[in-house]
Amino acid sequence: MSASVALARVLVAGGTHGNEWVGAWLARKWERDPSSLQRPSFESVALLANPPAVERGVRYLDQDLNRSFDDPTPGLGSAWEVLRARAILDAFGPEGRTPADVVLDMHTTTANMGLCLIVTNREPFNLQMAAWVRRREPRLRVYAWIDDTLPKSALSTIVPRGATLEVGPTANNVVRGDLLLATERVIGLCLDFVEAFNRGDLATRQPEALDVFVHQRSFDYPRDRAGEVTGFIHPRLQDADFELLNPGDPIFQLLNGETMVYEGESPVYPVFVNEAAYYEKSIAFSVALRETVWV
Amino acid sequence: MSASVALARVLVAGGTHGNEWVGAWLARKWERDPSSLQRPSFESVALLANPPAVERGVRYLDQDLNRSFDDPTPGLGSAWEVLRARAILDAFGPEGRTPADVVLDMHTTTANMGLCLIVTNREPFNLQMAAWVRRREPRLRVYAWIDDTLPKSALSTIVPRGATLEVGPTANNVVRGDLLLATERVIGLCLDFVEAFNRGDLATRQPEALDVFVHQRSFDYPRDRAGEVTGFIHPRLQDADFELLNPGDPIFQLLNGETMVYEGESPVYPVFVNEAAYYEKSIAFSVALRETVWV
Repeated sequence: MSASVALARVLVAGGTHGNEWVGAWLARKWERDPSSLQRPSFESVALLANPPAVERGVRYLDQDLNRSFDDPTPGLGSAWEVLRARAILDAFGPEGRTPADVVLDMHTTTANMGLCLIVTNREPFNLQMAAWVRRREPRLRVYAWIDDTLPKSALSTIVPRGATLEVGPTANNVVRGDLLLATERVIGLCLDFVEAFNRGDLATRQPEALDVFVHQRSFDYPRDRAGEVTGFIHPRLQDADFELLNPGDPIFQLLNGETMVYEGESPVYPVFVNEAAYYEKSIAFSVALRETVWV
Repeated sequence: MSASVALARVLVAGGTHGNEWVGAWLARKWERDPSSLQRPSFESVALLANPPAVERGVRYLDQDLNRSFDDPTPGLGSAWEVLRARAILDAFGPEGRTPADVVLDMHTTTANMGLCLIVTNREPFNLQMAAWVRRREPRLRVYAWIDDTLPKSALSTIVPRGATLEVGPTANNVVRGDLLLATERVIGLCLDFVEAFNRGDLATRQPEALDVFVHQRSFDYPRDRAGEVTGFIHPRLQDADFELLNPGDPIFQLLNGETMVYEGESPVYPVFVNEAAYYEKSIAFSVALRETVWV
């Protein structure tokens, strides 16, 4: 990493999902008064990403905004979130009027993910930011969801430098104070990192090891022939995000009382266990492998 | 209490709020196969109370169904839930085609309420049922929300014998297995109680003491002059349902960092702390007094 690239603008977004209120409340607070986001070497801009969804307390109006950033030229009649994504790109995208160099997007989850930074590429800046923040906030976990075949449809992927912060567990449509304060703290540390990067403070750093949970695949709920869900996350897997899941461990309990077990060949780390928004995506939980990387 | 009144039919409802899936899933399961609800002396009927709301994963379509049972003659153009409440009354109300003698309504909450049976009158049957179940499931708490000036607008109040079961904490639009199994267990114990009542097994029982949390009042979130919420439940009050709140204890933290404290004159028990659905009702939490009653 070199300090030859000075980063001029950081976008801090929340309310990308309108029922995730911790990020939405912070984004609205910082839109009104962004002073606590400022650092000497760059400008921070706060953005309430999907205001009408926040207003109505729903995840989205027409489609998931955080899967809408890959449509370059929306047509007449496009979904609201496609138009909104285009407007955000026109402002903060690489070709935008006020392009962002870094994008931080604040989310919550109903899963017991704790404090989790999600990166979607192996950009050294992102992993170094994660390691730097983690040294100051040891509860932080790093989840890498890297699939170069996927379109860059998430808000944090509109530029190469960026990350999504997930905090949980929490219900939607509430603000948990502990998670709001933790989000505020992690975002502040990310901004401190950008400042250190710009100042060249990191040029002399030694490589350090970072544990990264690398996404492997997702599991759907058990279903009957008509597609209806017939079971729920087994109580032993519920809340067990980032705890080793071994072959033979229970993963689902059917409504008829039967238990289904994990039939993989080797242990994995479950993540996003019982996230409310993923029922419609047919994801009961995902699994990751732990990889130690030098950053 | 006398066994001279034989109770012939128990209505077991769930999905009265369409985003509370534990009750909705159990109601749907039991609508298809009510065999596990049956007892020798009476019939049990399961009811998915608000199917289109469950289908869409929303609390309600037009208005809260659980505040809609007090409108005797809905007009053309009435809200969906008013029509639905009328249809339920026509089937199971006191003047209905197949009147229910007891109504049990299954709910979930985002608040840390544990297993909580809510009664809305001092009908001896209801308190005796609570005491009977609590002896077999000591985690159960009993919350009495008694206000005879309120219309009987909740599903569990369409007949004098009935209760609402609240289990939490859980996000909406998910099924937590532990809470589903606990709900199944408590409903089963309530039905066992009705069976014991009908058999006259309770005629020789001795009075017993029961702790009841009696509703006093509710507190709104701090707001600015425009009515917008300016703070959140203080982290020390979050999840502290049924834990004594003393004068001077923190209740809210403002977004500007200030703390607001409880200014009452005597200790109270907070309940329904940070329930998602109550933001729109301007309720941040309620408080109760503990009363020991002989039942």
